[in-house]
Amino acid sequence: MKFVPVADIKIDDPLWTSQFALVRDVVLPYMWEILNDRIENAEKSHCIENFKVAAGTSDDEFYGPVFVDSDLYKWLEAVSYCLSVEKDPALEALCDQTIELIGAAQQADGYLNTYFTVVAPGKRWTNHMEGHELYCAGHLIEAGVAYFKATGKDRLLKICIRFADLIDQTFGKGKKRGYPGHPEIELALIRLYEVSGEARYLSLAGYFINERGQGSNLFAEECEKDGHSFIFPDMVHFGADYFQSHLPVREQNSAAGHAVRAMYLYSAMADYARLTDDPDLINACERLYENTVTRQMYVTGGLGAAKLGERFTVDYDLPPDSGYAETCASIGLMLFSSRMWLLTGDKSCYDIWEQALFNTVLSGIGRDGHHFFYVNPLEVIPQSVSQNPTLAHVKTERRKWFSVACCPPNLARILTSIPGYIYALDGNRLFILTHIGSSFKKGGLYVKLAHKGDEYALTIDGGPMEILLRHPDNSTLIGDQFEERADGYFTIQHAGGRKEYNYCLVPQVRILKAHPRVSAAAGKLCVQRGLTTYCAEAADNAAPLSSLRLPEEAVFNEERVGWLGDAMPILKTAGYRVSEENWNGTLYSSQSSEYESCEIALIPYSQWGNRGENEMRVWFVEK
Amino acid sequence: MKFVPVADIKIDDPLWTSQFALVRDVVLPYMWEILNDRIENAEKSHCIENFKVAAGTSDDEFYGPVFVDSDLYKWLEAVSYCLSVEKDPALEALCDQTIELIGAAQQADGYLNTYFTVVAPGKRWTNHMEGHELYCAGHLIEAGVAYFKATGKDRLLKICIRFADLIDQTFGKGKKRGYPGHPEIELALIRLYEVSGEARYLSLAGYFINERGQGSNLFAEECEKDGHSFIFPDMVHFGADYFQSHLPVREQNSAAGHAVRAMYLYSAMADYARLTDDPDLINACERLYENTVTRQMYVTGGLGAAKLGERFTVDYDLPPDSGYAETCASIGLMLFSSRMWLLTGDKSCYDIWEQALFNTVLSGIGRDGHHFFYVNPLEVIPQSVSQNPTLAHVKTERRKWFSVACCPPNLARILTSIPGYIYALDGNRLFILTHIGSSFKKGGLYVKLAHKGDEYALTIDGGPMEILLRHPDNSTLIGDQFEERADGYFTIQHAGGRKEYNYCLVPQVRILKAHPRVSAAAGKLCVQRGLTTYCAEAADNAAPLSSLRLPEEAVFNEERVGWLGDAMPILKTAGYRVSEENWNGTLYSSQSSEYESCEIALIPYSQWGNRGENEMRVWFVEK
Repeated sequence: MKFVPVADIKIDDPLWTSQFALVRDVVLPYMWEILNDRIENAEKSHCIENFKVAAGTSDDEFYGPVFVDSDLYKWLEAVSYCLSVEKDPALEALCDQTIELIGAAQQADGYLNTYFTVVAPGKRWTNHMEGHELYCAGHLIEAGVAYFKATGKDRLLKICIRFADLIDQTFGKGKKRGYPGHPEIELALIRLYEVSGEARYLSLAGYFINERGQGSNLFAEECEKDGHSFIFPDMVHFGADYFQSHLPVREQNSAAGHAVRAMYLYSAMADYARLTDDPDLINACERLYENTVTRQMYVTGGLGAAKLGERFTVDYDLPPDSGYAETCASIGLMLFSSRMWLLTGDKSCYDIWEQALFNTVLSGIGRDGHHFFYVNPLEVIPQSVSQNPTLAHVKTERRKWFSVACCPPNLARILTSIPGYIYALDGNRLFILTHIGSSFKKGGLYVKLAHKGDEYALTIDGGPMEILLRHPDNSTLIGDQFEERADGYFTIQHAGGRKEYNYCLVPQVRILKAHPRVSAAAGKLCVQRGLTTYCAEAADNAAPLSSLRLPEEAVFNEERVGWLGDAMPILKTAGYRVSEENWNGTLYSSQSSEYESCEIALIPYSQWGNRGENEMRVWFVEK
Repeated sequence: MKFVPVADIKIDDPLWTSQFALVRDVVLPYMWEILNDRIENAEKSHCIENFKVAAGTSDDEFYGPVFVDSDLYKWLEAVSYCLSVEKDPALEALCDQTIELIGAAQQADGYLNTYFTVVAPGKRWTNHMEGHELYCAGHLIEAGVAYFKATGKDRLLKICIRFADLIDQTFGKGKKRGYPGHPEIELALIRLYEVSGEARYLSLAGYFINERGQGSNLFAEECEKDGHSFIFPDMVHFGADYFQSHLPVREQNSAAGHAVRAMYLYSAMADYARLTDDPDLINACERLYENTVTRQMYVTGGLGAAKLGERFTVDYDLPPDSGYAETCASIGLMLFSSRMWLLTGDKSCYDIWEQALFNTVLSGIGRDGHHFFYVNPLEVIPQSVSQNPTLAHVKTERRKWFSVACCPPNLARILTSIPGYIYALDGNRLFILTHIGSSFKKGGLYVKLAHKGDEYALTIDGGPMEILLRHPDNSTLIGDQFEERADGYFTIQHAGGRKEYNYCLVPQVRILKAHPRVSAAAGKLCVQRGLTTYCAEAADNAAPLSSLRLPEEAVFNEERVGWLGDAMPILKTAGYRVSEENWNGTLYSSQSSEYESCEIALIPYSQWGNRGENEMRVWFVEK
């Protein structure tokens, strides 16, 4: 079972064509300016300059967090996906020039990391907990693989291989013991294995996965060594679970610790389990996935209930206002979900994949392509955010950049890579996993999925095959030619040749409750259209939104509004508002609530915060 | 208008007699052991040892927070109230000995502070923001006044006066500019003025009050001086509003900053406004009081919605789980409320006073007298508290002591001083402000308030006078001999001589809602009996408490249970619980909620956490 890769796919979709264009034409050029410190009043990146310093062509100093190299790698990976879809010689030339810079910063033995080269040359591989060397190496490798696949050029891939070989010579049984504080190398080595066919990269990924949580606490031992200096002094207080190294990975049962680290590790575990067909590891992945999505996931596909440690906490602990739900964690959930689909074929993995993408991931990026969310709360009252230090991590509007800027370039690479998640081929079976208008030619096969509104036309030209169409949760799929299966796919046996199949996919609107143990959502309702979660903003509904009441039987009208375009309808319904009339000067009262009828207007959660600072809320009190 | 002082009052009350006995016989002896570092497995105090070090009789080092002296002063103040009610020669001898130790630690010029004497002798009066010198001086003076009133002995009072005189010579117009980072000296100087009649202490209190927030930022200037070293490094990030020095006090409109500091300042402002009859300051006090109690107070009388800065945030921001509601802040609210009553005569000030006392203040102390709460949340889920770092400040069970131990000795002094808040005399008017069984003789007047259950007998023996009985909120007061007034008092004209008046005071049970702007309580209900707020614990109701549903029309039965005694009934009603039956493996669902009937049992909030770690909740989803 393999995904049809990005390079083969052409997108033609009411929503996603413009979404990709925004990333390609606006976000990526903007980020290039950011990486070169040319955007005013934004947090400084210094990323390119650090490479020049490491290459010896700049006298400047290193600046930025220890993992800042990865911002450039993620940018290169995203640009690669763009180039794989459409040639752009000027952009490719810029990449080639940047790759030369990266090459110039690589050390003679293959080592590549601007922080450790410039700031702490004697400290290489001494601080796995905080150093992010393997993390940056992973993003380098992902970029190298993507650029090679996009352009056929192997200059960056060779840089990666030199570094990967050094890592392979350094770490492993009988060599240096280690595994990264922040997983990412594991994923990347598996991609390198897949592109190179070199089994030792798979083995090395397996080493990092399998060594984790075994025996003595690697990170604690590092911290106790003479000469150890902390990069993130608070990290010493974090337990091994923050790093998912509290137990061997096969014994882990609950999503734990830093949510992005967890998702990257679990994704690599799922890859490795699939490639090695390891039943214990498969079981661990299934347990961790189930725990994540049925106990610790916001209804927006957000992960991580606590700011400190950007982390998972405990089952059903999902505060809407003080939570974290980092954009990168939901990107990680997409990675984990797509790999769990490869592992299990369970279509519900793609329901989660879409729930993450349509909500928290898309929320990460502003409609102008120049502003980003790192934290994605489900409830924002601007006055409280500005005055209550418990909420200091929450931003009420997207930012130009961040001092720790993992999310924006990660958004760019996930959004440009989405074409590569639409189709999968397994012998003579074709899976259509997410209904994004697109087409591809591969071997003798031509597939085109066209859609206009809810009407889809699937054209197949090629040899006899079984087609499996995923039925997304909370939608009606109608197609006379298809057969509905119990496992959530609609199938058709394509007899060969060219044929068009039609179906209709209509997102439904539903009102959701959370599990009774989710204290923060007790007595509350939220609204989804398809897998897009909706929210209210004060721009459409008078504040305070806390006084809105939503009837469980509410019926919603879809409306198109100019600023959101046709692909993102808003939802309107008749609801209620608690009157404040008799509350003057009273904080607590036994008076009966008086309700006023009102219209409640909801927008897709991903689009909040695009119209200036205002209140926002996903969960509404039921009336 | 003056309160009848503690020393004149004898308590005989079903609840308060045993409450006082607990403090006198258990809490205060326990604290003495703590202050002497003789309790195992408790946070170390070192308080007494620090005085020995400062006095030159110990070679040990200073240990503890910079304000640790105040723990001893508060203990002495509390012991004084006990001694004023009942002689105890052994205890008095212990006090006298301790006072000698304090005297020995006093410097030749009157200065007294163990931290600055031992650790930073050259830094006296250089760090008003963090140093707590004036704060500790204030608690010293309050102890000195209390001990003098209790015993007639002036040794400690003289120590206080020497120090107060040094402060007066140091600070003021044309002298050193200054005011304390933590208000307390102002209150204390006014008490010293009242006992000594020396107007300069009142003036000095006025100077500290009036200088606050004027002109340049005193604290910022200190921090910028050469040689400044931070005692609490985080404090540099706190704005002037944290210290209530962002505006001159007469221009302040909203309760702001550290909640205890705010309450102590506002209390002193109310005292000073009353004594100087300053209309602008009276207005400021009224605005600040109104903001506090109608916008920023938990239904438990708790104050301070944020952990960082232990502070007020913004109107209606009252998170039940992550808030602070420090015990000391509610003690401060009692101080502020009693002074606002002196200033305005408004009986509702005493409703707030009782709301603070009956709930957050009493919650501060465990039934065993050996354990204490510092933070008083309205909702606790132990698993979340243990795993979510946002809640790290919350404790699910009371602690033996704290590294910053302001609350336990503050509890001791407020609880032992309560007799002094029952009655007030104003010429020939007698106010009975809180219905605690007690008696006093003063001049030719004998007053006795006896009660058994809801039946009260008020005996007056003395000259003709008007008696004003406060009608507490949420209670029925029935007394044929009394006349009900519109302002919430029941009055009687006592013609003189000895007479018994009878009345019946029955606490009602009511269901409260919060103002619609309190997002955290939207759609929720809580229960009060009289001014005692109730909560559910998992000890009486199966967890999770988030699944309980309370009907607005619920009717409660009172029941007596052994562990709470007769004075604290529990409440029972028929409610509902959301079934978890169909939720297996599901986090979000559009299924209809299924409800099971259940009994909901509530206990007084102040008594939670006395039966081991378990869930607790004040606000319930309405059904």
